[in-house]
Amino acid sequence: MKIDVLWTPLELERVTVQDRTAVAVDVLRAGTTVAAAIHNGARAVVPAESIEEALRIANSIGRDEALLGGERQGLRIQGFDLGNSPLEFTSEVVGGRTIVMTTTNGTQALAALAGAGVVYIGALVNLRYVVAALRNAAGDPLIICAGREGRVSVEDALCAGLMVEALVKKGRKSVRAELGDGAQAALALARELTPVSDETLRSTAAGRALDELGQEADIAFCAQLDSIPAVPVLRDRQIVRLESTVGSGRRGKGRAR
Amino acid sequence: MKIDVLWTPLELERVTVQDRTAVAVDVLRAGTTVAAAIHNGARAVVPAESIEEALRIANSIGRDEALLGGERQGLRIQGFDLGNSPLEFTSEVVGGRTIVMTTTNGTQALAALAGAGVVYIGALVNLRYVVAALRNAAGDPLIICAGREGRVSVEDALCAGLMVEALVKKGRKSVRAELGDGAQAALALARELTPVSDETLRSTAAGRALDELGQEADIAFCAQLDSIPAVPVLRDRQIVRLESTVGSGRRGKGRAR
Repeated sequence: MKIDVLWTPLELERVTVQDRTAVAVDVLRAGTTVAAAIHNGARAVVPAESIEEALRIANSIGRDEALLGGERQGLRIQGFDLGNSPLEFTSEVVGGRTIVMTTTNGTQALAALAGAGVVYIGALVNLRYVVAALRNAAGDPLIICAGREGRVSVEDALCAGLMVEALVKKGRKSVRAELGDGAQAALALARELTPVSDETLRSTAAGRALDELGQEADIAFCAQLDSIPAVPVLRDRQIVRLESTVGSGRRGKGRAR
Repeated sequence: MKIDVLWTPLELERVTVQDRTAVAVDVLRAGTTVAAAIHNGARAVVPAESIEEALRIANSIGRDEALLGGERQGLRIQGFDLGNSPLEFTSEVVGGRTIVMTTTNGTQALAALAGAGVVYIGALVNLRYVVAALRNAAGDPLIICAGREGRVSVEDALCAGLMVEALVKKGRKSVRAELGDGAQAALALARELTPVSDETLRSTAAGRALDELGQEADIAFCAQLDSIPAVPVLRDRQIVRLESTVGSGRRGKGRAR
């Protein structure tokens, strides 16, 4: 198994994504929010690159089914139903609805991944479930950190490193894996920064920005490792729930393709 | 003091380099080789982005003074006087000469840094001397990892992280510094991967590639922390020696601008 981690989506320019099983990681907050939405019964999350595109897609779906979600500069977009806080995406609000979503970093990383065989959405909250899905998928794992405005972000690299650590360990045995430099670096980072705490996330650039916006509760939510047993998967430009990933995830194999 | 680290030159797109004191880090091998060349009496190293540009510059300097150096796929370019091994750049060979140099990653990172106030060239071999120069410079430090073909490289991130660690410590005191996410991540990586050994470098993608080319001796040379008391600085498109950086480096202040 070859495992690699891209520290920013910019690195995608130099990488072949075909035949890889990709994970787009965005801990603060889009990845966490999408996991919460899918877990709480949203039919799908449709990523949009711009506000205009989001409005267009929502209108084509119909405003009785679609909800508009997303942020610019961390704040809910004017006229949108939801921001980018996972706490907003409760089952009462999102159950049975399709969320059209545009965020500064997360959804743009997804656009760059259009060519990959399989794309999961990962965060700390669903880490072990994503790892189980990766183990069952055919392609070698390629973990892409959304980062922050084209720059490295600590929390995404940390999450990616924890995924690498989980992938190379299986029970008490180590799995033979070839780690690219991005994966080696993420693994070293994760070993240094664990155990994960609210404090770890709060000290990052994205964490400090959320703190300033008074969104401390989001940070605590996003730091809860393995709290959401759902793996969002991108299919035909929509993010839906990967079935059968709760538990060992073995039954997910056929569905993951 | 604000300190930041860019994990690949691609991140330069999103960063203002003016008023920053930049360090281009390329451990395996261009940064090490340039430090060796400057330390061993080369008058200057002129970075060129392509083989064609290197030939043109060398001809304009005159082939009695200029030497051509550099690599493609790790190997000396056909017809060039020197490759990219620091072991080739002895005082007998480079003393008094101007080296026109083109490498896959290192020289291209430099081209992207044309707008920075000051640009030093750093590697593990001259780490403490670069840190001393950074302490004396007016601009906040911005450390740019050359990486490898647009991807993150462990050895450059490690070197950058050790620079961050040295910058925030001064004697027994900690210096108050604001670390960007790139700097936080590099620092965590460095803490996990120290002490630096040949083995650390050998396990990276660049290290494995050098091993395959039979260049193990280069890896050992590049891993020798603080072995070369010279700080190369980019001035008017030429890399020259920053004067007075041996020791505390205080006298270097005026020259660094």
